[in-house]
Amino acid sequence: MVEGFTDLGFARVDTDRRKRCGFPEVIFGFGKTPEQVAAIARVILKKDPVLLVSRATPAQYEAVLTAFHEARWHEQARCITVERPALPKLNGTIAVVCAGTSDLPVAEEAAVSLELFGNEVDRIVDVGVAGIHRLIAVKEQIEAANVVIVVAGMEGALPSAVAGLVSKPVIAVPTSIGYGASFGGVAALLGMLNSCGSGVTVVNIDNGFGAAYAASQINRLAQPPTPAT
Amino acid sequence: MVEGFTDLGFARVDTDRRKRCGFPEVIFGFGKTPEQVAAIARVILKKDPVLLVSRATPAQYEAVLTAFHEARWHEQARCITVERPALPKLNGTIAVVCAGTSDLPVAEEAAVSLELFGNEVDRIVDVGVAGIHRLIAVKEQIEAANVVIVVAGMEGALPSAVAGLVSKPVIAVPTSIGYGASFGGVAALLGMLNSCGSGVTVVNIDNGFGAAYAASQINRLAQPPTPAT
Amino acid sequence: MVEGFTDLGFARVDTDRRKRCGFPEVIFGFGKTPEQVAAIARVILKKDPVLLVSRATPAQYEAVLTAFHEARWHEQARCITVERPALPKLNGTIAVVCAGTSDLPVAEEAAVSLELFGNEVDRIVDVGVAGIHRLIAVKEQIEAANVVIVVAGMEGALPSAVAGLVSKPVIAVPTSIGYGASFGGVAALLGMLNSCGSGVTVVNIDNGFGAAYAASQINRLAQPPTPAT
Amino acid sequence: MVEGFTDLGFARVDTDRRKRCGFPEVIFGFGKTPEQVAAIARVILKKDPVLLVSRATPAQYEAVLTAFHEARWHEQARCITVERPALPKLNGTIAVVCAGTSDLPVAEEAAVSLELFGNEVDRIVDVGVAGIHRLIAVKEQIEAANVVIVVAGMEGALPSAVAGLVSKPVIAVPTSIGYGASFGGVAALLGMLNSCGSGVTVVNIDNGFGAAYAASQINRLAQPPTPAT
Amino acid sequence: MVEGFTDLGFARVDTDRRKRCGFPEVIFGFGKTPEQVAAIARVILKKDPVLLVSRATPAQYEAVLTAFHEARWHEQARCITVERPALPKLNGTIAVVCAGTSDLPVAEEAAVSLELFGNEVDRIVDVGVAGIHRLIAVKEQIEAANVVIVVAGMEGALPSAVAGLVSKPVIAVPTSIGYGASFGGVAALLGMLNSCGSGVTVVNIDNGFGAAYAASQINRLAQPPTPAT
Amino acid sequence: MVEGFTDLGFARVDTDRRKRCGFPEVIFGFGKTPEQVAAIARVILKKDPVLLVSRATPAQYEAVLTAFHEARWHEQARCITVERPALPKLNGTIAVVCAGTSDLPVAEEAAVSLELFGNEVDRIVDVGVAGIHRLIAVKEQIEAANVVIVVAGMEGALPSAVAGLVSKPVIAVPTSIGYGASFGGVAALLGMLNSCGSGVTVVNIDNGFGAAYAASQINRLAQPPTPAT
Amino acid sequence: MVEGFTDLGFARVDTDRRKRCGFPEVIFGFGKTPEQVAAIARVILKKDPVLLVSRATPAQYEAVLTAFHEARWHEQARCITVERPALPKLNGTIAVVCAGTSDLPVAEEAAVSLELFGNEVDRIVDVGVAGIHRLIAVKEQIEAANVVIVVAGMEGALPSAVAGLVSKPVIAVPTSIGYGASFGGVAALLGMLNSCGSGVTVVNIDNGFGAAYAASQINRLAQPPTPAT
Amino acid sequence: MVEGFTDLGFARVDTDRRKRCGFPEVIFGFGKTPEQVAAIARVILKKDPVLLVSRATPAQYEAVLTAFHEARWHEQARCITVERPALPKLNGTIAVVCAGTSDLPVAEEAAVSLELFGNEVDRIVDVGVAGIHRLIAVKEQIEAANVVIVVAGMEGALPSAVAGLVSKPVIAVPTSIGYGASFGGVAALLGMLNSCGSGVTVVNIDNGFGAAYAASQINRLAQPPTPAT
Repeated sequence: MVEGFTDLGFARVDTDRRKRCGFPEVIFGFGKTPEQVAAIARVILKKDPVLLVSRATPAQYEAVLTAFHEARWHEQARCITVERPALPKLNGTIAVVCAGTSDLPVAEEAAVSLELFGNEVDRIVDVGVAGIHRLIAVKEQIEAANVVIVVAGMEGALPSAVAGLVSKPVIAVPTSIGYGASFGGVAALLGMLNSCGSGVTVVNIDNGFGAAYAASQINRLAQPPTPAT
Repeated sequence: MVEGFTDLGFARVDTDRRKRCGFPEVIFGFGKTPEQVAAIARVILKKDPVLLVSRATPAQYEAVLTAFHEARWHEQARCITVERPALPKLNGTIAVVCAGTSDLPVAEEAAVSLELFGNEVDRIVDVGVAGIHRLIAVKEQIEAANVVIVVAGMEGALPSAVAGLVSKPVIAVPTSIGYGASFGGVAALLGMLNSCGSGVTVVNIDNGFGAAYAASQINRLAQPPTPAT
Repeated sequence: MVEGFTDLGFARVDTDRRKRCGFPEVIFGFGKTPEQVAAIARVILKKDPVLLVSRATPAQYEAVLTAFHEARWHEQARCITVERPALPKLNGTIAVVCAGTSDLPVAEEAAVSLELFGNEVDRIVDVGVAGIHRLIAVKEQIEAANVVIVVAGMEGALPSAVAGLVSKPVIAVPTSIGYGASFGGVAALLGMLNSCGSGVTVVNIDNGFGAAYAASQINRLAQPPTPAT
Repeated sequence: MVEGFTDLGFARVDTDRRKRCGFPEVIFGFGKTPEQVAAIARVILKKDPVLLVSRATPAQYEAVLTAFHEARWHEQARCITVERPALPKLNGTIAVVCAGTSDLPVAEEAAVSLELFGNEVDRIVDVGVAGIHRLIAVKEQIEAANVVIVVAGMEGALPSAVAGLVSKPVIAVPTSIGYGASFGGVAALLGMLNSCGSGVTVVNIDNGFGAAYAASQINRLAQPPTPAT
Repeated sequence: MVEGFTDLGFARVDTDRRKRCGFPEVIFGFGKTPEQVAAIARVILKKDPVLLVSRATPAQYEAVLTAFHEARWHEQARCITVERPALPKLNGTIAVVCAGTSDLPVAEEAAVSLELFGNEVDRIVDVGVAGIHRLIAVKEQIEAANVVIVVAGMEGALPSAVAGLVSKPVIAVPTSIGYGASFGGVAALLGMLNSCGSGVTVVNIDNGFGAAYAASQINRLAQPPTPAT
Repeated sequence: MVEGFTDLGFARVDTDRRKRCGFPEVIFGFGKTPEQVAAIARVILKKDPVLLVSRATPAQYEAVLTAFHEARWHEQARCITVERPALPKLNGTIAVVCAGTSDLPVAEEAAVSLELFGNEVDRIVDVGVAGIHRLIAVKEQIEAANVVIVVAGMEGALPSAVAGLVSKPVIAVPTSIGYGASFGGVAALLGMLNSCGSGVTVVNIDNGFGAAYAASQINRLAQPPTPAT
Repeated sequence: MVEGFTDLGFARVDTDRRKRCGFPEVIFGFGKTPEQVAAIARVILKKDPVLLVSRATPAQYEAVLTAFHEARWHEQARCITVERPALPKLNGTIAVVCAGTSDLPVAEEAAVSLELFGNEVDRIVDVGVAGIHRLIAVKEQIEAANVVIVVAGMEGALPSAVAGLVSKPVIAVPTSIGYGASFGGVAALLGMLNSCGSGVTVVNIDNGFGAAYAASQINRLAQPPTPAT
Repeated sequence: MVEGFTDLGFARVDTDRRKRCGFPEVIFGFGKTPEQVAAIARVILKKDPVLLVSRATPAQYEAVLTAFHEARWHEQARCITVERPALPKLNGTIAVVCAGTSDLPVAEEAAVSLELFGNEVDRIVDVGVAGIHRLIAVKEQIEAANVVIVVAGMEGALPSAVAGLVSKPVIAVPTSIGYGASFGGVAALLGMLNSCGSGVTVVNIDNGFGAAYAASQINRLAQPPTPAT
């Protein structure tokens, strides 16, 4: 366990992460200067082929773009990605199911992260429980995925309904969409933690990235063994 | 506005309540001695034909029974009722829809109260969203009611689903059933307050009586005008 | 249950809502782009005569106005409405009772929604419990309504007092008016949920629309049967 | 500021309290052994004529009674008092107004404390806002007092209504009576802190003693100057 | 109880307040337009000699000044006052004790309100418990007042210390000064509610006005009887 | 979607669950009578080979045992299981990693559930972060599993450390072990939701069953394709 | 970092703890069976001279006593200790200052732990801020200690006052003593975290042991260098 | 205890603080005007050689700089310092260990304060538990310090891991870095209060200064006795 990191003074970049955990370190953009983000990005991309900056700002994007012309800015998802080359594509899809239009930014953070990690994404938008026929209409489409990410704000009831309809692992992402007694996503979070739908697991409020990371880990497990290897 | 109450020293019984609000005063049993409950009951039944004691104890029941042989004890609902005679029966039904078997005591408090107030009750049990086909199977049955009371613990998602299926007013009752992050019913309460199903109104945790009272008021409004009056 | 919605990619508009629930889908403006709002509005108004956008912005109004010249902007209520033609008017009135002048925006959201849904509204402003004679002076006016919506911030005591004075269903709307230990409306919300006034039901903080929707459902039940139908 | 206390090892009894604050130290019984209570009582009664133990237990009473045959046990108030002799009686009365029968134990803790401190008490029970005529009927009776203590659980709305009716200082005591979203008295506490009735001050949940202490201080201020002293 | 108010449409001004409660109605400026404030001010000043607008804005001040040239703006206290003529001055003083310099705005709201109500104010600033000798140095000064208002943020410990030093009623005002686990004044509020100093009563966070109102009521009680009345 | 359930009056057993979701319905024992549990068990075992009752009581076990002699009682896990025959065993293992000895009951609920669902379990106990060498010693053992369930109370830091050491999906279970500011497991829950270890998903406090269910779903995905099917 | 622990199946005893951290592992008794406690005790005492079991039960004590006749039971502190032989005594004292008599059990847990760790303890009881002269009387006694542990419930104001009087590190222990808005010690905890007294650090509610451990670490630092070593 | 402070009207500067507590009074900049800060600074520097203003603004810095040309502005730490001359340097170092790059501002507030108080600081950045090898690599470096300050946001797990690796006192500083269920640092705060690592003490969220003050007090205790004094 000697070393395995690069000390930049303001950051100790975990260059050993991909070997241990399967994916390189991801930069949490919040509260970092553009210069810090770019410097960390350089260390990561020296060893690993892809980069993800979550909760990023346009200024951080500019700094990364200067260093890496392949950098892309995902407006709605507030993410920076670099792929050179892309990770190998995995079999099967991951469904990202979204309760309402207002939940889209969090769903996009999940989708962008999933695609960077090599997954194919099936986006299904606006199937909240107040019009349950919309959800039932896509039941087979969801069942066809290997993993299901369900993004919902307000009362966060959608994961319970989805978990009761399909046999695949459901990862629930509460969003801060709502007002008053939604308490910035707490109502949705509690709803999901208390889900009567068996097997729902939950990540932090607005944490599309975290759900994507877990779903990618699961999807890798679901890959057929590579023949003759 | 002179008088309109009887002062017992430890209680000022509101003998004017039925004239103002349509139903006689109801005794909240919690924290009262059997003697206090019986004494208040005597004042109410002197002027009004029916009595309801909610959150009652067997000892309170004994005290009331001594004074009024018609008194009945509703074990699951923890209520005492006296009818002499019963209130006139109203047209139409009120559906009491219950998410799980463990929510039955609260649902029964609502049903017992509704029946005392002259309503016909349609009990529909265990139709939680984790098996949504159970709910869809009773959609017409629910729509046939004038008002719908939905009782649910855990994540409290059922009222949203019901409100999206029918056109009748939905009164949601969160229950304290659950554990951990249900926080004694808070998760269900928040879920219902943030319902994406339009028109859901909410009462306090485990307050089956309150939902019944409101539903009765609505059902009275829904009565056809009595001919030639 | 085939279809019943229109898939716009970013939204699945529930075109079946009015048939199931009695009113067309309402757009929750918060977090949607003007283009998204206008596009959803087009789908709704293709099938239904009226449109309501709650929590709307002036920019959303501009986008809707471009598409529908009948669109109206309700400044205080932050709502967009379109009526072409208006829904049929219902008999009876709904009282919107307001504790203080600062609660007016929420009360107006309720009133605008009620009027769009075909109800006649009786606005009663600034009758908080600190000057109870102001409330008693309008007791008969409130009793004359079919349903009562009570809007209050701070300690949210008004619904208890109203419920004790009249026989009609009371729907309580806590507002975020207050400071310090009002916690953005939580104090009023808890006050209303614990009301000693029987039959008070509650909606989310600042949710004037939700109260209006429930009150409309009740008022429809209260309509006299149409003769010879 | 030398000394002014007696060190018992497990307690430093503040024998200087009456000189500084006007009343001798009061024993908070909770969590103390009967022996500790009796020992502290001995120190206090050596210097001061009266003793109050709040939140006391019957076992503590037995221990105090053994030492002081004048000791009295107040069952409902859970207090022990000793008067030898009693403090001089003050002019004027203090009203203890109580929202419901279930709030009586807290009201009695206030009343017993007030009487020990030399005040005359006017008890007014069960005048909650759900039957506001009961409160209006005693308006003059309340105004006649020098100070008003208002005890209420559930939504805690009574102090607002009282403060709007009279000109005397109102001290509000939230009680833990209620269930569900009353959160052990938090709803009543928040209601009182956010009271729209000007001048309401608040003490801790179930703290009848604290309200009595403050009311006594105020009542002493209200005493007419003793002639020729 | 006929009338006693003026209905402005957006407000029902309680013109009966001074007769019932001793002081005219006070305008809570928050959330009201300058026009609304000025209109309410006109109604109040038609009947009463003084006006107070709390939580006011400069724009509201401009509107009131246009109507009443005597209007004064209290920057730090965020209050508007009008006196024509002033209320009669009361005997004795009220001490406003302040834990730290950052708590001054709330203390000033209390002081300005007190002075308008006819009280003489003794301001004592920055005597927090971390340097307890500063408090002990002013012990006699505080005891000389009829009532003591103690303003403190952070842990809110000052009222306990003051209450243990003097015999006068202590009204505690928690402020929102602090950060992190102060939760906008909640830590100070809880500290004051749980004060081990007997007789401390508490008002809402940052509610300098409320404390002043209660203190004024108490100070009036403390006035010597006017001779030959 | 016709039927798919059996209506027992007090329960609508979801007999369609295994077809939709992969496992038969599980009985949540809390709040149900022994008779209700036994009756539901009969319906489930009529169609499905295995039964799980979580949060069960000895009395419920007696009732189930009377009906099914194969019933087993898992004392520490508070579970009843019936297997006739057992479900087919899956390849690979699931690690159940436990922070402390006091967390064992929750870990056992997970382990018992996993085994009933056909998984092989590797129990790793007492490797909390205060002695991190204990965790590092089992790093390879954990990596060898397909899925990792991490059970921890107090500050709930273990999942972060585990997620940083291995590449497999980590499901975190907060327990209610702790005191004071652990708030019945809330501290651990928040710690896990905010984990800096990527890909940690979380279930409700003490919800060993929920983690097991999700882990089983994942483990099934990880099975090699059955040859010649 | 090979090994350094003993795996008992239900526990991995950290036998390396004293080498790394200075004190052997301490057993947290809560939730462990007497057999588990005794078995862990055997492993610890095989390598280390002293044992501490906190939050212990009499049954656990019996089990430890059977194995080690030197075991002692500390009733008030709910601790088991074994010393064979005792750790060497450190120079200087640690003051354990206690706000009220009801806080004694937590103070004793601290004192018992300190003594086991080789520290001399100076107990100072019942010097709460409501009688500040009691605290000032012991100012020099406190300053004479190397470290100060301050134990207080209710509003938790004592650490602020102590920190302002002396120059030694103050470790604050909030206790769960109080009622109502003390919320089981939360008010005291928040008060201490927001202390205006510089340098106050805080441990969990009722965590006398934790304070003692930290104070011991500090006291060891304060030891004079052993001559000629 | 005569005097010991200077009364500026808006502040009572505690000029006795260094004598009692070892360091001069520190100015909490938040909510003070630049003029107030400068005036207080003048009083402090008249008697004491160094000045610290925490939570300062650039405008406050300008005001202090005008008065004292030695004033320095610490951008990241938001502190103003003046040293004329500096305090004597202490032996030994204090480690400031930081979980992530985003926590640097709080860590710098601690470091700047420590240096002003005469301590040598060893900064160790970005060693969060998700890459535990980064922490283990600096274990000896941390053990070499006299005291350890650990700064962490999100789940706040780092102090537990550090406390398990070294024998020195660990002071934990939760930061507000995080989102969603981090609740502005509450998750980290609770994690630290519930730390399974013995001896961790905690300060308020983002309170780098407070940790530094306590660490300085401890470091002074750790100084070798000055020879022949």
